[in-house]
Amino acid sequence: MNNEQKENLNKLIELVKDIDFTMMTTIDDDGSLRSRPMSTQTIGEDGVVWFFTGYESGKSHEIVHDSHVNLSYSKPDDNVYVSVSGRAKLSKDRAKIEELWSPELKAWFPEGKDDPNIGLIRVDIDKAEYWDSPSSPVTHLIGF
Amino acid sequence: MNNEQKENLNKLIELVKDIDFTMMTTIDDDGSLRSRPMSTQTIGEDGVVWFFTGYESGKSHEIVHDSHVNLSYSKPDDNVYVSVSGRAKLSKDRAKIEELWSPELKAWFPEGKDDPNIGLIRVDIDKAEYWDSPSSPVTHLIGF
Ligand SMILES: Cc1cc2nc3c(=O)[nH]c(=O)nc-3n(C[C@H](O)[C@H](O)[C@H](O)COP(=O)(O)O)c2cc1C
Repeated sequence: MNNEQKENLNKLIELVKDIDFTMMTTIDDDGSLRSRPMSTQTIGEDGVVWFFTGYESGKSHEIVHDSHVNLSYSKPDDNVYVSVSGRAKLSKDRAKIEELWSPELKAWFPEGKDDPNIGLIRVDIDKAEYWDSPSSPVTHLIGF
Repeated sequence: MNNEQKENLNKLIELVKDIDFTMMTTIDDDGSLRSRPMSTQTIGEDGVVWFFTGYESGKSHEIVHDSHVNLSYSKPDDNVYVSVSGRAKLSKDRAKIEELWSPELKAWFPEGKDDPNIGLIRVDIDKAEYWDSPSSPVTHLIGF
C-alpha cells in the first residue's frame, strides 16, 4: 500500500469507527439485492474488513455465487454516510477467529468460538465514497 | 394488494417514517455495488417508493443497465435496520414532480422544479426484511 492509500484507509477507519453496524448488501441468486446489519469486527491496516458469520448462511451462499458486496455505514446524528464497494470471501481462519472473538458474540454463536458453524467474511475494499453534509451534493471518493 | 400485503406495507411505512435518508445500492457496469444516501420522498399506498434524482446521473445510468436496487434504512438509536429489495425505474412524470416538490430540494436543484435535469426514481418493492433488536438473530420478513 502506498502513502496515499494508507491515508485514504485511515480516513475511512476514522469515519466508521463509532458506527457499530453496517448494512452489508449482497446479490441473491435471482439478481435481487439484499442487505442486513452486520457488526464490523475490525478494519485492518491491510484494508481488509472482517465480520463473523454463520458459515452456512444465506449471505455465505450469496457471496460464493457473486462476491461483490457493498457496506453502507450511516451515522444520521452527524450526517455521515459511507459506501464501501468490495469483494467478500468466506473464511474459517482459526487464528483470525481467536483474534477477533469476544464474549458478546455468544448471542450469535451460543457454543462460543468452537461453534461448528462459526465463520468469517473478509471484505477486500475496492473503493469507498463518503458524504458528510446533509445539504451538499459533494461526494468524496476514497480510492484504493 | 390484498389485506396481508396492506398490513405489511403499513408495517414498513411505520418502521422507516422517521428515517430521513436511506442508502440506495445499485449495480455498477463492472458488477460492483455502490450505495449513496437518498431522501425518501414518500412510500405510496401502492407500495412504490419515490426519490428525486438528477435525470442524468451515475445511479440513473446504473438502474437503466440493471434495475435491481436495495434500500437500507438504519436507525442506530432504536436498533432498527430495514432492507428493501426492489426494482428501480427512471421517470420524468410531471404530475408526480409537482406533487412531491418542496422548496428544500433547491439545494439539489437550484433551478427549482423546472430544472431541465430533474427526475424521479420509482422503486417497486419486491421484498423487505427488518431487525429490531441488537442481540437477536431474528429476521422479520415482509412479503409483497
Ligand atoms: C443526506 C443526503 C441526502 C441526499 N439525497 C439525495 C436525493 O434525494 N436524491 C439524489 O439524487 N441525491 C441525493 N444525495 C446525493 C447522493 O448521495 C449522490 O451523491 C448523488 O445523487 C450522485 O450520485 P450518483 O453519481 O450515484 O448518481 C444526498 C446526499 C446526502 C448527503
